[in-house]
Amino acid sequence: MTHPVLVAGSWRPAHDPIGTFHATNPATREQRPNAYPISSVADVHAALEAGHEAALALRSVAPEQIADFLEQFADNIEARGDAIAAIGHLETALPEATRLRKGEMGRTTNQLRQAAAAARDRAWVNATIDTGTNIRSMLGPLNGPVVVFGPNNFPLAFNGISGGDFAAAIAAGNPVIAKANPAHPGTTRLLAEAAFDAVQASGLPAATVQLLYHMPPEAGLELVSHPLVGATGFTGSQFAGLKLKEAADKAGKPIYLEMSSVNPVFILPGALDERTADVAQEFYGSCSLAAGQFCTNPGLVILPSGEAGEAFAKAAADLFAQNAPGTLLSPNGPGNIANALGTLTEHGAEIITGGSEADTPGYAFENTLLRTDANTFLANAEALQTEAFGTVSLLVFADDAAQMAQIADALDGNLTGSIYTDTNGADDNAYTTLEPALRPKVGRLLNDKMPTGVAVVPAMNHGGPFPSTGHPGFTAVGIPASLVRFAALQSYDNVRPHRLPPELQDKNPTGTMWRSIDGVWTQNDV
Amino acid sequence: MTHPVLVAGSWRPAHDPIGTFHATNPATREQRPNAYPISSVADVHAALEAGHEAALALRSVAPEQIADFLEQFADNIEARGDAIAAIGHLETALPEATRLRKGEMGRTTNQLRQAAAAARDRAWVNATIDTGTNIRSMLGPLNGPVVVFGPNNFPLAFNGISGGDFAAAIAAGNPVIAKANPAHPGTTRLLAEAAFDAVQASGLPAATVQLLYHMPPEAGLELVSHPLVGATGFTGSQFAGLKLKEAADKAGKPIYLEMSSVNPVFILPGALDERTADVAQEFYGSCSLAAGQFCTNPGLVILPSGEAGEAFAKAAADLFAQNAPGTLLSPNGPGNIANALGTLTEHGAEIITGGSEADTPGYAFENTLLRTDANTFLANAEALQTEAFGTVSLLVFADDAAQMAQIADALDGNLTGSIYTDTNGADDNAYTTLEPALRPKVGRLLNDKMPTGVAVVPAMNHGGPFPSTGHPGFTAVGIPASLVRFAALQSYDNVRPHRLPPELQDKNPTGTMWRSIDGVWTQNDV
Repeated sequence: MTHPVLVAGSWRPAHDPIGTFHATNPATREQRPNAYPISSVADVHAALEAGHEAALALRSVAPEQIADFLEQFADNIEARGDAIAAIGHLETALPEATRLRKGEMGRTTNQLRQAAAAARDRAWVNATIDTGTNIRSMLGPLNGPVVVFGPNNFPLAFNGISGGDFAAAIAAGNPVIAKANPAHPGTTRLLAEAAFDAVQASGLPAATVQLLYHMPPEAGLELVSHPLVGATGFTGSQFAGLKLKEAADKAGKPIYLEMSSVNPVFILPGALDERTADVAQEFYGSCSLAAGQFCTNPGLVILPSGEAGEAFAKAAADLFAQNAPGTLLSPNGPGNIANALGTLTEHGAEIITGGSEADTPGYAFENTLLRTDANTFLANAEALQTEAFGTVSLLVFADDAAQMAQIADALDGNLTGSIYTDTNGADDNAYTTLEPALRPKVGRLLNDKMPTGVAVVPAMNHGGPFPSTGHPGFTAVGIPASLVRFAALQSYDNVRPHRLPPELQDKNPTGTMWRSIDGVWTQNDV
Repeated sequence: MTHPVLVAGSWRPAHDPIGTFHATNPATREQRPNAYPISSVADVHAALEAGHEAALALRSVAPEQIADFLEQFADNIEARGDAIAAIGHLETALPEATRLRKGEMGRTTNQLRQAAAAARDRAWVNATIDTGTNIRSMLGPLNGPVVVFGPNNFPLAFNGISGGDFAAAIAAGNPVIAKANPAHPGTTRLLAEAAFDAVQASGLPAATVQLLYHMPPEAGLELVSHPLVGATGFTGSQFAGLKLKEAADKAGKPIYLEMSSVNPVFILPGALDERTADVAQEFYGSCSLAAGQFCTNPGLVILPSGEAGEAFAKAAADLFAQNAPGTLLSPNGPGNIANALGTLTEHGAEIITGGSEADTPGYAFENTLLRTDANTFLANAEALQTEAFGTVSLLVFADDAAQMAQIADALDGNLTGSIYTDTNGADDNAYTTLEPALRPKVGRLLNDKMPTGVAVVPAMNHGGPFPSTGHPGFTAVGIPASLVRFAALQSYDNVRPHRLPPELQDKNPTGTMWRSIDGVWTQNDV
């Protein structure tokens, strides 16, 4: 039996499917039993049409009802938590209890509830009222459904049907068409069932959530560029992301991409003098989290050449070598890492430890540390920023802060950048040299902290300059900041009071909503 | 003598220019005396390199100093106002005293001073502080200069070196490379001199403002897609805009475009019953402003078929026929209008009045009114939305509000949409039918008002869905809203207090800056 897709308010067989696919258990290399459909453009068009109608219908649904849905969905996930974590584990090999059932599921339901709170309090719409001209503006929903492509590495918290982009798009008043990651279709199915049940319970338009499991690339391009689509959120590979971006851009459709990042970590001399072993431990811990398959994995470390840097390299290499590699998420994980290592070593990086596929029952690759010097890096900057999606990192030895700044200047856009310094100010001058070069290259600048761990707070930026994302002004994590991606600026000029949306009427619709009235942020009525 | 360009802090001859060009006086069809250079990529690269260095240098310049520059520049424009208006008139044929010296110059200096105030008060950076996690975020400048392409129709207020995009980019902390509109190089030169003198007086980096007059298309594509550029603001034709968009998108460089819009006006039956003559007069007044060459020109009017609609058409046609056409901005104006009329009439529009180039000393085209019915429009919706940049409008007769909603549904994205209704509520049901279809298609929704007249206030949206712009979330007019286009979201995670930018330190840097601290908008310290 092939599983149905969720289109236009019903679980129904895929129309004219291209074929079927199965997930793989990465821990055993065994194919999972259930077959899922590969949709053709027939499903894409049906989902877009139903989604477009749902978008229109959602415009007359109160934000409170959308919030109810998000909270009901979070409750449903928790009620079905054991089953979701169990299948999630079988499809991803991520630890069932600690990572999936507890950590990632907690993050997922927290995001949904934060999104519900944002929909309720409405401050995110940035209501702006000029009483002198009687012009009023706010962010409103898009004119069509939001497509969300989830990545393979967070089957719950970034899933197209339950993750951050989903929560943001729905809270902003848009329906979602989720494109499952083909690595974990069963997990996605259970989440979609939980979502659709919540849609029905809360009385939202039936096509508010839709799910397709898989499709050929050309159907994906159609999905993100069709006249009926509102926008797209994508988390995944740079290769796929840039193809989708090209199609969406050409059609004038917004697309928000989170693609690739090596997350440079700069370690200044004073920090090593003070705490080499601690920093090495933090580095290994961060780099090996989930077998190195985090978007914010520290894949590039810039450190001082000489004795202190060598001591750090040795301490780190020992940790990489002594610890067993984790299981990778998918069958092509080891091959992708090997390819990336090929590019790195061809351009002057030397392997200190690791470098080969691991001989394990599941898919795995040895923890791998590489090294090069600053001049080699600067001469091959593009190639030596190749991302290896695993417990792999490249150490670059630099002479001084000025050379570190040169390296920062040669970096592509990244999600994060970290600078480690001593605690007494000995590194402050070097920091002042380095920071101006690094700041514009990264979305989030950290001090004395590894980049993994992306708190869901309003000031988070899980974004950054191209090619880490497609636009430097937006974040994929953090509520309400992530909602604004899925909204249009809508101004009302001389519109009669009773025709204004509640958010722009003289009376504050909730009594507590923050609005900017004549340049002053207030919770008062006009 | 060929005028120099302004690159890297000096007025110097173009390097390896492609050739020269001259402006034309549209009122006399005579070539203007001064020669201006057509730059090659040599100037483009030089400007980008200098602009990139200026961007880095500007990061350590206080917002107050940037504000001083903007105010000094506004003062300089006023001090040289007579000369600027005089040459502006000779290059555009726009009325020298009323339009240029008074109206548009006042708007221009007002925008610059509003931008200065925004830079000073800093609220636009959207400073967000989470005290629990010590994560803090704000909008910061881009990593490179902003390129601004100005249109032909607002030689001062949208000029690349003095207009809204310029003011927004500078106030957000970025240098600007202006690409003059070749229709008014002399006006642009005087403005650039005023800007550069202000740069020197206020001590900003010398390459904070740069000016190139003209370049071949391939150099323009290089300019917007080069690794050193920060972003681009463009106002002009859809043809040029889409070419630039494609190049910038491919390079992952933000580009904000204001392209084309027919600005639909829907007139409901009650409004005609009540005030046909008044609405016809408002319509003609708006449509003929500046010979119809406004971005928000009402080029499409949807009105009830039958007696009332016919009476409106007759009243409007009389006004179009009785009034002399204005002078167009450029030699190709009449030909462009004739081409657009060809497309419209080929697809079922009939000319009521006008339709030919005017026999006048300057470039002009007869005021032209066309008509068609809703079914013809719906069957040829794409072609019948062709913009004619002049005093040209198409009346579409519809049976009822439902058919008007169908027409709204068939529209492309527009900057504005207007709905006229009676004052006693007779049209309220029809409004309720029409508004949900129109709202998502336009950036600014108006009641009982023609779309020309774009107030520079925080709630203005001079933007809209594609293809009126490239992204529905941004506005080109309105301060501080227009600044956010030229900024990157920058998060600081665990960054030590003394290393934070002043906007994110515990102490409010101005004592009055609005910041969001733990979800509460406040002017207090943390």
